[in-house]
Amino acid sequence: MPAESVPAIEIVRTRAELQPAIARHLAAKRRGPGAPALGLVPTMGALHAGHRALAEAAVAQNDVVVASVFVNPLQFGDATDLERYPRTLDADAALLAEAGVDLVFAPDVEEMYPGGEPEVRVAAGPLAQKWEGASRPGHFDGVCTVVSKLLHLAMPGGFDGARAAYRAYFGQKDAQQVAVVRRMVQDLDFPVEIVAVPIVRDPDGLALSSRNRFLSGQERDAALVLSRALGLLEDRARAHEPLNPDDAEALIRSQPLVELDYLDVVDTDTLEPLAFACRETPFTGEALAIVAAAVGPVRLIDNMPLRAR
Amino acid sequence: MPAESVPAIEIVRTRAELQPAIARHLAAKRRGPGAPALGLVPTMGALHAGHRALAEAAVAQNDVVVASVFVNPLQFGDATDLERYPRTLDADAALLAEAGVDLVFAPDVEEMYPGGEPEVRVAAGPLAQKWEGASRPGHFDGVCTVVSKLLHLAMPGGFDGARAAYRAYFGQKDAQQVAVVRRMVQDLDFPVEIVAVPIVRDPDGLALSSRNRFLSGQERDAALVLSRALGLLEDRARAHEPLNPDDAEALIRSQPLVELDYLDVVDTDTLEPLAFACRETPFTGEALAIVAAAVGPVRLIDNMPLRAR
Repeated sequence: MPAESVPAIEIVRTRAELQPAIARHLAAKRRGPGAPALGLVPTMGALHAGHRALAEAAVAQNDVVVASVFVNPLQFGDATDLERYPRTLDADAALLAEAGVDLVFAPDVEEMYPGGEPEVRVAAGPLAQKWEGASRPGHFDGVCTVVSKLLHLAMPGGFDGARAAYRAYFGQKDAQQVAVVRRMVQDLDFPVEIVAVPIVRDPDGLALSSRNRFLSGQERDAALVLSRALGLLEDRARAHEPLNPDDAEALIRSQPLVELDYLDVVDTDTLEPLAFACRETPFTGEALAIVAAAVGPVRLIDNMPLRAR
Repeated sequence: MPAESVPAIEIVRTRAELQPAIARHLAAKRRGPGAPALGLVPTMGALHAGHRALAEAAVAQNDVVVASVFVNPLQFGDATDLERYPRTLDADAALLAEAGVDLVFAPDVEEMYPGGEPEVRVAAGPLAQKWEGASRPGHFDGVCTVVSKLLHLAMPGGFDGARAAYRAYFGQKDAQQVAVVRRMVQDLDFPVEIVAVPIVRDPDGLALSSRNRFLSGQERDAALVLSRALGLLEDRARAHEPLNPDDAEALIRSQPLVELDYLDVVDTDTLEPLAFACRETPFTGEALAIVAAAVGPVRLIDNMPLRAR
């Protein structure tokens, strides 16, 4: 797409400017008596085709779309990981503009956390203790706290006294984040619908991640074993065969550059292991296969919905 | 006021009904291009003239007012205290109607916490650890969690794409609750203005409380020492005299039916003790005097803003 055909996108840096901008866009989109809907796409920037799918889903389902770009210090346990997290706002804004996003909210840390870290936070609870939460203590509390702030800051007004429809978009790649945010919205009655958008993969199967850029060519090849192991489980689930995830685990352990953290088959909402799905019993119903591993300098996660046909 | 002159009040029992009712009231109140404002008065029922002052302030400042009546199990440490907390919905609705409130939201526990206690909660942080929080572990987490839910459930839509103004009213009697809720709103960017309404006292000075009904006549008389001790500090502050809170503390300790928990002079926002205000230095500026004590079967709290004239 030639540069001149990229639509304009409005970039807002402060909390105070965001709400008037949203109201202006909503008012401009009103046609007839129905209320325009607002979509929010929270990101940490370093956007790739996975984020683009989030933005495109939001654009398809809403009249006005806001994307936020904010690297949230609260959700990083490791200062080095925070520091090296890529910041690419110009490229991010171009990608979002091409996807049809109307507004980018790109505050700095002082704007989001004036006077330092917040005292009052959201405690993500038991769902956040397992899997990624076990490896990254406090991570999901940090996620829930910043997502609460962003949901409030972008929360639309409405028309004729009613609320505009409000949807927020999260990538299914971070399956536990989706489950935790859904639980937060339900438990705290946030007036928003959470929409999970399927994982986008490279043609060879690697799930897109902003961290993939830190992999060497050799490490990237090795990392393919993760999606292959999940694919093995997916094939067996479809065929109503016993899953026997030990086979998938053995496949990963056969790759010396990959250090497996966990691989399991869990309930999609509670993330509790489904022991019955993992034994010799033929697979029925639905579940989620999840995996996490260290590959060279980065920790990768991936997952696959399992459905018996 | 004769019964037939009491205005009608709408009582809503479910979360699903609340938002359409609010939208309908807002739309009905629109006159001209400005957006009607919504006031929320969260209560636990057992309403008295202190709550009435909250409702009247909300009615004076907003076009539509919702009061919630919900005894929140999460903020009670003690099951007996929860069980004996008075439930008087008919009388509460009559008082709110007389004050001009439009809507009462009175859900039951299963409606607010379907499936049991929420997993995701608001952690009120360091401000909630001291004073009342020290005596009632988890109390302010429970308060913040239910207030988050109520703020979300009653959050108004708006007009022409913008948000309607939104204010929530809390009694200054629970000074720490006001400080914690303000901090929550600030840290999590809730789109609402928190309004604190001054304490209402009986003519003899006793701060109104739903728990006062559990005091015997003798205990009630003894409890007056709390407001007298605060009044002593107020007089000294006004007169630019040293506060010497030891004198106020000695006054309370002279009353054998009253068991003092704490009395101190603190910053209104941070609730940190202001040591300098408590010594021989003449008082200047502003502060808050706070007190808590057990009187017979109940724990009472009271406070007084201090201002040098």
